[in-house]
Amino acid sequence: MPKPQLLETFPNPYADRDYEIFMETTEFTSLCPLGGIESDAAELLLLEGGAPDFATIRITYRPAAKCIEAKSLKLYFWSFRNDGIFYERAVNRILDDLVAVCAPKQMTVVGDFNVRGGLKSVISVRWPQG
Amino acid sequence: MPKPQLLETFPNPYADRDYEIFMETTEFTSLCPLGGIESDAAELLLLEGGAPDFATIRITYRPAAKCIEAKSLKLYFWSFRNDGIFYERAVNRILDDLVAVCAPKQMTVVGDFNVRGGLKSVISVRWPQG
Amino acid sequence: MPKPQLLETFPNPYADRDYEIFMETTEFTSLCPLGGIESDAAELLLLEGGAPDFATIRITYRPAAKCIEAKSLKLYFWSFRNDGIFYERAVNRILDDLVAVCAPKQMTVVGDFNVRGGLKSVISVRWPQG
Amino acid sequence: MPKPQLLETFPNPYADRDYEIFMETTEFTSLCPLGGIESDAAELLLLEGGAPDFATIRITYRPAAKCIEAKSLKLYFWSFRNDGIFYERAVNRILDDLVAVCAPKQMTVVGDFNVRGGLKSVISVRWPQG
Amino acid sequence: MPKPQLLETFPNPYADRDYEIFMETTEFTSLCPLGGIESDAAELLLLEGGAPDFATIRITYRPAAKCIEAKSLKLYFWSFRNDGIFYERAVNRILDDLVAVCAPKQMTVVGDFNVRGGLKSVISVRWPQG
Amino acid sequence: MPKPQLLETFPNPYADRDYEIFMETTEFTSLCPLGGIESDAAELLLLEGGAPDFATIRITYRPAAKCIEAKSLKLYFWSFRNDGIFYERAVNRILDDLVAVCAPKQMTVVGDFNVRGGLKSVISVRWPQG
Amino acid sequence: MPKPQLLETFPNPYADRDYEIFMETTEFTSLCPLGGIESDAAELLLLEGGAPDFATIRITYRPAAKCIEAKSLKLYFWSFRNDGIFYERAVNRILDDLVAVCAPKQMTVVGDFNVRGGLKSVISVRWPQG
Amino acid sequence: MPKPQLLETFPNPYADRDYEIFMETTEFTSLCPLGGIESDAAELLLLEGGAPDFATIRITYRPAAKCIEAKSLKLYFWSFRNDGIFYERAVNRILDDLVAVCAPKQMTVVGDFNVRGGLKSVISVRWPQG
Amino acid sequence: MPKPQLLETFPNPYADRDYEIFMETTEFTSLCPLGGIESDAAELLLLEGGAPDFATIRITYRPAAKCIEAKSLKLYFWSFRNDGIFYERAVNRILDDLVAVCAPKQMTVVGDFNVRGGLKSVISVRWPQG
Amino acid sequence: MPKPQLLETFPNPYADRDYEIFMETTEFTSLCPLGGIESDAAELLLLEGGAPDFATIRITYRPAAKCIEAKSLKLYFWSFRNDGIFYERAVNRILDDLVAVCAPKQMTVVGDFNVRGGLKSVISVRWPQG
Repeated sequence: MPKPQLLETFPNPYADRDYEIFMETTEFTSLCPLGGIESDAAELLLLEGGAPDFATIRITYRPAAKCIEAKSLKLYFWSFRNDGIFYERAVNRILDDLVAVCAPKQMTVVGDFNVRGGLKSVISVRWPQG
Repeated sequence: MPKPQLLETFPNPYADRDYEIFMETTEFTSLCPLGGIESDAAELLLLEGGAPDFATIRITYRPAAKCIEAKSLKLYFWSFRNDGIFYERAVNRILDDLVAVCAPKQMTVVGDFNVRGGLKSVISVRWPQG
Repeated sequence: MPKPQLLETFPNPYADRDYEIFMETTEFTSLCPLGGIESDAAELLLLEGGAPDFATIRITYRPAAKCIEAKSLKLYFWSFRNDGIFYERAVNRILDDLVAVCAPKQMTVVGDFNVRGGLKSVISVRWPQG
Repeated sequence: MPKPQLLETFPNPYADRDYEIFMETTEFTSLCPLGGIESDAAELLLLEGGAPDFATIRITYRPAAKCIEAKSLKLYFWSFRNDGIFYERAVNRILDDLVAVCAPKQMTVVGDFNVRGGLKSVISVRWPQG
Repeated sequence: MPKPQLLETFPNPYADRDYEIFMETTEFTSLCPLGGIESDAAELLLLEGGAPDFATIRITYRPAAKCIEAKSLKLYFWSFRNDGIFYERAVNRILDDLVAVCAPKQMTVVGDFNVRGGLKSVISVRWPQG
Repeated sequence: MPKPQLLETFPNPYADRDYEIFMETTEFTSLCPLGGIESDAAELLLLEGGAPDFATIRITYRPAAKCIEAKSLKLYFWSFRNDGIFYERAVNRILDDLVAVCAPKQMTVVGDFNVRGGLKSVISVRWPQG
Repeated sequence: MPKPQLLETFPNPYADRDYEIFMETTEFTSLCPLGGIESDAAELLLLEGGAPDFATIRITYRPAAKCIEAKSLKLYFWSFRNDGIFYERAVNRILDDLVAVCAPKQMTVVGDFNVRGGLKSVISVRWPQG
Repeated sequence: MPKPQLLETFPNPYADRDYEIFMETTEFTSLCPLGGIESDAAELLLLEGGAPDFATIRITYRPAAKCIEAKSLKLYFWSFRNDGIFYERAVNRILDDLVAVCAPKQMTVVGDFNVRGGLKSVISVRWPQG
Repeated sequence: MPKPQLLETFPNPYADRDYEIFMETTEFTSLCPLGGIESDAAELLLLEGGAPDFATIRITYRPAAKCIEAKSLKLYFWSFRNDGIFYERAVNRILDDLVAVCAPKQMTVVGDFNVRGGLKSVISVRWPQG
Repeated sequence: MPKPQLLETFPNPYADRDYEIFMETTEFTSLCPLGGIESDAAELLLLEGGAPDFATIRITYRPAAKCIEAKSLKLYFWSFRNDGIFYERAVNRILDDLVAVCAPKQMTVVGDFNVRGGLKSVISVRWPQG
């Protein structure tokens, strides 16, 4: 399960200025929630979900009172490592967790997933709407 | 014949949020509807249409109640493999089939076809108009 | 002389939809209208114009009732091969010829010419104005 | 089934010189021989093999008396389109068929296959043995 | 623990020819064997090792009687996912496991690890020596 | 400590024209303000802050009466070399110092920091507020 | 001294159409107006200004009655070769000279100068204002 | 017909040193010797051969007493413009013509032809053999 | 002063195999030993040497009994940060220090320094000779 | 005239080790020795030679007792700025001048000249002969 309790913030040192922070990891990995591993292998691998997924996650936000602490964000991403989660859920969940913890003026999260079955998928979400 | 009956959807897990999904395959192939193969070869090849075409297909949509299931999209693309179809028809057809199955808020489909006779062609369609 | 009579069209199969077609060749060649070849060589080369020019031509249009047939466009481009024509004339001429034959809703033509004398030139024209 | 009877040759116009010819297609496609398509979809798709494979094929050879005719090579590649064949077999088979038809001094064939399940595969074969 | 029992082989279909097979994944991940996660986070993350490592693994071999089955190789790579293992051990271990299962004429394994602390590391091993 | 007293300006030679100046260094380096170096090493290294950070800094401004002198900007960047400073502070500080010294019509500063812990960070600030 | 008297124009062959011309040289060179060469070397080099500067110059304009003749533009650029001139002056001067000679509807000039002292500079000017 | 009489040489200014000269054009064009143009278009186009071919030609040689004059090489390449010639003939012919005119110690000619029918071709020839 | 006492090793886990380790940092920085900073600025900057230098350092070695510990290598590189040292000395010094600490079978060190005054420098050293 | 008297050396700090130094400038410029400028322009431009040439110069050498001082090399390159010199002469001359001043164990000089008339030229020379 993603663990938002790992996320930490620090006070925005220039809270009176409207500016933008972009953070990107090319090392996001989770598991496909559908079992895609045949039974013997599944037993050997001890993976509760299915096949590993890999993505680049890009976060852009305009901080209000709080900034996201980078190291805690890294740990939060690690908490997806052994969870089965669909692409759409993962990206929307990250947005919700980050908005909850730092209450930004605006935030977008993009999940750019590696090719699977010849198909690349990119999910882009934004807060607030419109 | 393209087979939209292969397409499947799943309920949008974040249907109350307006967000964007991009899906891309670099492995789309169909046949040119014009016979471009001389008779003996045509007989040997048993291709009903003409020469193979190759394209990258890019789909961008904002889901409403339903999302397109990725594996079914892959199978749908495969159903063009042995059909003769013009570029303009193929791309418009994909848009129509996908809109019919998932009723998105908005969708664009781009077909970026490999060079033929020294000419590259890219067809871009959008739904709804305007 | 460019030969617009080589251009052919076919009925737009989705004429009720507003969409975009992009066609590009990296193999456009014409001749410089200024004699840049010294006399003996000119005689041997039998080139009526001057030095060869090379360009990438990019066409983007929104079809109305008619689409441009790709093979005929290729032949039309070939008809510039042994003509002396300035960059500005060539690009504007292509726009005029294509608009005349397919009466699009909108069209742009870009001619991106190879470096000559250390200078690269790109000419971009659009129809209709504004 | 690959159809080597589609391959044609022409006499090497410079047979007294030892030189090298390289030919490459980025548009090779065949089918996986393992059924990877669930039954309903398989019925709809009418594919005798399994999922499509895509590859770049690179041929390098030093011609002796005969050169491979390019258009016939293209048709020969098309004859793999609807066959189920493993990577290793496809590349070795191409080498055998081409050597049989043109009897070169030397030939290498490389099949560079698209990523499947996160794995890229490249098979390189050579004739005669080194 | 890496699980070589997941590896499968198939008979080399062209065992009388000396040729080369290259396989690459950009999605290898394991854990650093050193605890790099502070205690509370470690408890939450339930990672037995330390911080995740990511690498591209490249395998090149000349098959003798047996070829490595691609899907089983993918599963074998997955078995490193939750193990703590140093770079040098991981790459040498992969070589040992693959050689044991397919007894190739020759094999090299390259592990190209993502930057850590501003340092990129690439380990290259070969069998047999010399 | 960053030393804005190193910054120099020269009169804008075309002060009656509204134009844009972009300046970029790929060689910005400062120190992380958090101690990330274990004690013995820290003593040997004599670094007052922690681990070195590296960034590309991009400045875009529309000059009013004064332009920033390039060489003095380089020296100003050097004054961050041995200071511990957070990313957000560094970029906002640079904006404040440059605005103070040259009073531009508009300025943006972007700090594009190297990957740390698998995370890339880019901070973008602008003056005056939009 | 830059020599605008080298610039020539020709009548816009499609003066009734609003279109765009882009011209670029990657071979612009001038001298830094500050003496950066120590005395003995300066005497040997006979350079009146200081160290050479190099830039890519990009011109985009919408012609009115006149187009800039490419060869004359090349000669005009050469006239900066042995002059000491600051970046800001050079780019603004080019805009003024070109506007004076061809009276375009609109023009932008961008000077993209090579790195000096680890700093890259790009100056962008436009006519008319706003 | 290619016109080697256009080629000129100049005395090698460092004939006592063994060195290498590389010359490359990305603007080589000739015609396919096979009629690939339907009759009406052929009449309009007045092309004696068939469809245009485009190539990059790369020449590497070690000069003996004579060097090839660059401008004359350019004219020589132009003499292929309206000739129908096969790839293999063109590249071997260029080698023969250049060797005849400058008698180098060694020369290679590579013709790297644009994709036709999805196939790229590169021909490499060398003098002397071995 | 570079501080080799920061370097640590660990026992080669596969000491009976001859293999290769490559390590690269793009974040090496030192100071130019020549004073290149005018006096007032020098006083403000408190840099004992001159202008900062930046380089990518690439190390390739075949370990014998000991491998270089990555984190300690990073700290060793940091010890150059505030030292004035010439390119040639830095690269040779790194080789000497690393060979002394890990006694490899073979090692090369490459220092690829950023452009200064329009000149890029790369120094490559190897141990043992020959 | 190129001025080798500008070149300076410093004692090789590791003269007992056989190693390699690479230096590259992308900012070499000289003049074509052939008058390529029509008379009026030539008078205005005051260029004694013809049109400017631009090149990247790459020097690789194994130093013996002396290394080439980088700043003096830069000044030496500047001394070609207003001289008319053929490509072959320039590159051979640079080799001769550099060998004369630093007496290396081995040196290569490569001059990679910008496209002129659609032709790129690269001259590679080496000392001593192979």
